Amino acid sequence: MAETFYLSNIVPQNYENNAGFWNRLEMYCRELTQRYENVWVISGPLTLPVTGTDGKKSVSYQVIGKNEVAVPTHLYKIVLVQKGKAPSELLALGAFVVPNSPIGFDHQLSEYQLDLQDLERMSGITFFPALDKAKQYHNLCHVDTCKLLNFAEFTQYIAGRKVKNARTLKALEKIMGELRESRIEPDEYLQNLYLRKKQEVERKETAESGAAKPG
Amino acid sequence: MAETFYLSNIVPQNYENNAGFWNRLEMYCRELTQRYENVWVISGPLTLPVTGTDGKKSVSYQVIGKNEVAVPTHLYKIVLVQKGKAPSELLALGAFVVPNSPIGFDHQLSEYQLDLQDLERMSGITFFPALDKAKQYHNLCHVDTCKLLNFAEFTQYIAGRKVKNARTLKALEKIMGELRESRIEPDEYLQNLYLRKKQEVERKETAESGAAKPG
Repeated sequence: MAETFYLSNIVPQNYENNAGFWNRLEMYCRELTQRYENVWVISGPLTLPVTGTDGKKSVSYQVIGKNEVAVPTHLYKIVLVQKGKAPSELLALGAFVVPNSPIGFDHQLSEYQLDLQDLERMSGITFFPALDKAKQYHNLCHVDTCKLLNFAEFTQYIAGRKVKNARTLKALEKIMGELRESRIEPDEYLQNLYLRKKQEVERKETAESGAAKPG
Repeated sequence: MAETFYLSNIVPQNYENNAGFWNRLEMYCRELTQRYENVWVISGPLTLPVTGTDGKKSVSYQVIGKNEVAVPTHLYKIVLVQKGKAPSELLALGAFVVPNSPIGFDHQLSEYQLDLQDLERMSGITFFPALDKAKQYHNLCHVDTCKLLNFAEFTQYIAGRKVKNARTLKALEKIMGELRESRIEPDEYLQNLYLRKKQEVERKETAESGAAKPG
């Protein structure tokens, strides 16, 4: 986990992509840990060629900052899961290449799936070298859902996180108001989270206003 | 030497550059072996960023063929020379970055010289790691000429190579005629080469016409 925040492990990512589609892909990976005994995830950057109007293929990517750090055109993620503990247990693998740009809720993860061998060719990296790629694993999107949160689920999830961090009654009501405006009905979990947080904030606000009163 | 022709050692290079400026740079490197005891040469490709009209820096390069081999935007060459055999002998180094595009005779090699440290930053490679870069070497272009062949010298050199390969009197006269048209006076070496070749071809043509005569 600690290595996640090494500078050498960080790539410049489109903000909307990182907060949106990529975020939902990472949520899906966390979700997998509840259904599978082992979950391995490998992520990385790619600079892929595009064919121009002249028919020529070329690679173009921006570089930023004093050290000219490359902004990848795409990001990849490889997800390998295993049901049980034994090495002979079923393995399932999904390899995905996602453009480093905003991707809306109308796109499915499976649109970005490709063969691991193709990703190996594109990246020049051999992944899971001990794995017999022709035989040893199933397609993750066939044995599992490969479903990312939809707009309502995602918005509710983000609202839940905001509720947890809310410090005032006003902030809390604003979050729930915005959710209603998006015509999203809070589920039981979010409703309970909201009610508990409301009590907590009310108690705190009452205590503070009491403390502030001239003795 | 054999490694020179490994596919892994070959990069797509602009034809005119390879036949012209880069060729003359390689001739200069060969020339150095006559003046120095040791000559080490390292060459490689670079894909360097350029600043666009929008002020953003980006890297762009073409990829060619089925395997999408990158066409570098620049090539580098590092030349390290040593006068004598002892490790304590004077070392001189030149690092050069040359655009992978045609470069005319009006350009000097020294225009493309840069600090080795800058090239190391651009390429991400540490060259001659055992060398104390701050102290141990002189600037090659100060202690040696760093002069590439000029147009007349280069044209004469190419003519000399063609003379060596000529098989007929007609081909030989065409080469020398083209040289005269370029108003380049053959030097003594080329003149002698031409005369020897002329005798050789004449002898061969006479023998062949004799053999072809009906007995």
